[in-house]
Amino acid sequence: MFKFKVVAESTQTRARAGVIQTAHGPVETPVFMPVGTLGSVKSITPEELVACGAQIILGNTYHLYLRPGRDVISRFHGLHRFMNWHHPILTDSGGFQVFSLAKLARITPEGVAFQSHIDGSSHLLTPETSIEIQGWLDADIMMCLDQCTAYPASFEEARKADDITFEWARRCKGAWTSTGDEHQALFGIVQGGVHPELRRTSAQRLADLDFSGYALGGLSVGEPLDRMLDTAGAALPLLPREKPKYIMGVGRPEDLIDLVCLGADMFDCVLPTRNARNGQLFTARGTITITNAWYRQDPDPPDKACTCYTCRNYSLAYLRHLFLARELLAYRLNTIHNVHYFVHFVRQLREAIMADEFESFKKRFYENREI
Amino acid sequence: MFKFKVVAESTQTRARAGVIQTAHGPVETPVFMPVGTLGSVKSITPEELVACGAQIILGNTYHLYLRPGRDVISRFHGLHRFMNWHHPILTDSGGFQVFSLAKLARITPEGVAFQSHIDGSSHLLTPETSIEIQGWLDADIMMCLDQCTAYPASFEEARKADDITFEWARRCKGAWTSTGDEHQALFGIVQGGVHPELRRTSAQRLADLDFSGYALGGLSVGEPLDRMLDTAGAALPLLPREKPKYIMGVGRPEDLIDLVCLGADMFDCVLPTRNARNGQLFTARGTITITNAWYRQDPDPPDKACTCYTCRNYSLAYLRHLFLARELLAYRLNTIHNVHYFVHFVRQLREAIMADEFESFKKRFYENREI
Repeated sequence: MFKFKVVAESTQTRARAGVIQTAHGPVETPVFMPVGTLGSVKSITPEELVACGAQIILGNTYHLYLRPGRDVISRFHGLHRFMNWHHPILTDSGGFQVFSLAKLARITPEGVAFQSHIDGSSHLLTPETSIEIQGWLDADIMMCLDQCTAYPASFEEARKADDITFEWARRCKGAWTSTGDEHQALFGIVQGGVHPELRRTSAQRLADLDFSGYALGGLSVGEPLDRMLDTAGAALPLLPREKPKYIMGVGRPEDLIDLVCLGADMFDCVLPTRNARNGQLFTARGTITITNAWYRQDPDPPDKACTCYTCRNYSLAYLRHLFLARELLAYRLNTIHNVHYFVHFVRQLREAIMADEFESFKKRFYENREI
Repeated sequence: MFKFKVVAESTQTRARAGVIQTAHGPVETPVFMPVGTLGSVKSITPEELVACGAQIILGNTYHLYLRPGRDVISRFHGLHRFMNWHHPILTDSGGFQVFSLAKLARITPEGVAFQSHIDGSSHLLTPETSIEIQGWLDADIMMCLDQCTAYPASFEEARKADDITFEWARRCKGAWTSTGDEHQALFGIVQGGVHPELRRTSAQRLADLDFSGYALGGLSVGEPLDRMLDTAGAALPLLPREKPKYIMGVGRPEDLIDLVCLGADMFDCVLPTRNARNGQLFTARGTITITNAWYRQDPDPPDKACTCYTCRNYSLAYLRHLFLARELLAYRLNTIHNVHYFVHFVRQLREAIMADEFESFKKRFYENREI
């Protein structure tokens, strides 16, 4: 059921536009996927996500496995009906949170043993259970369990983590194949830290396993921008052209431009949602800090050209007041704006590719920056 | 511009239905007014308020005077445009919060001196400044500055507070009259604790001052239900029939039934919004505590007969999960349901009065209770 088709390629860069078909409808790429950690993109509804232009969202396997858990989600035949989002969902494997959030994570021959960050209960996440969980979540796109290294990781550390990741990818593929159910797609994940040679090996051997799509994990974990781009640039060309390529957990609008240039198709990041809750608004002029006294009486919206609900209805002065007063509505109005900004920004990248005007789009993007 | 007309009267009780005309449109009574303390009914938008059936909301003078303050609100010519709510607004006088929330409140010959609960800055609230603030807030209905007594207050304490309240009502009327601007209405407030004889005197002398409408303050402050009803029942019949009668800060659905029976037209209370944020949902069957394990896998909405956005789209299981995970969406979905419940409940009281079926409505209300 899962399909991907490249519909346009930039003649100036490696950027391309495509369409992914999933069990819950199409996704036009390049695409930005808002993060819905616990079955909710924090503070906003599915209708607001659609109004922001979102086509696909992320769910976090680790979080949803612990809360609300299998019995609850299964009662609704998966995450879509549980959270009232009837469009595509991609779930991560749970690996990233197990290593970053859970307590006492320990790699065993079977997988990773860990303790819940909520109640300390003991769990074992294996390639097979990760696929099983993503199965009952009914994700349209599942991710292979991987081990993400911190920055900096030595060549040896990164190699070891990628070897484990590759072994787990094999087992995930096996578990997925044995279900015989193809309405869920499965993506493999390239690791290898910031070592381009490791990333190349990782991409090549993963490509041989023939996944529905491929992701680069372990980027934007603190490395300098040029190293991130070198690393991504080493791996991306070795992944099959006819498969979607997803850069996990990245990033700022300027990073998205550079990565799309290198051939990336899919992105997710907590930046728009988290920063919204911290009072940071993304605009074409740059990032606005809503607490700035400059906006105290400002009757203008965050971005006059923006068509989001927030910009159509509210002033900087009101948003500043709500945020300073810690009104719940502040987080929501900021989130709507930022999600709209990211989704539309990547949508504009797509349109620039379709029109083969990527370089002039990029030039205009930097010219518009003021803040 | 302000007008009130009684359009139906119950033959079984003192209940009546009416229509208030304000500068920002009509309000059908009896009416429940959601509380928008700081220029936002916590967590929901003006569009959601309208969808919940709200016709008029409350703003808090004390809060808005301190934050965002006159310069900001005046830049928007009042609260309506600042918060994007273009329907009627009633503001309180600031008195209640000065006595309950501010620091070092002290009655002086001019009014009340107090320190801000936010930054400790010194302020003086007088009958004249209260009217002035409510003027730049552009409230459709302003309230006279009053002194609310705690429960229990002795006869002597309550008498003293009502004397001050009456003196301030005179001065508020003077300040209002001197503006010569009649697009804002002014309501007088009856005090007198739980002493029916004091309430009667208070109502009578206040009625002689000829306000646009009248309120009972200082109820639902901890007194037993029967004393509240005795007190309200003593004062309400002495207020002019042709003016709207507003019971401030009350209350539970069952209290609203009893007070409408006594002739009350308007209500406000933080119960639906505050309890929503504490995981309490009001339904025809009674109050649901969303954390109850009973709802863990429940696919039903809080109230199957309810037409609010929350009940049309979400399950108890999902609402329980969001609330336990402290997701921001939880507070909003709960608030939408509760505001819808209160507004519609009072709307149903109105319809029962119009149909002259108040007693059977009341009977059915208690029969439906299960929880």
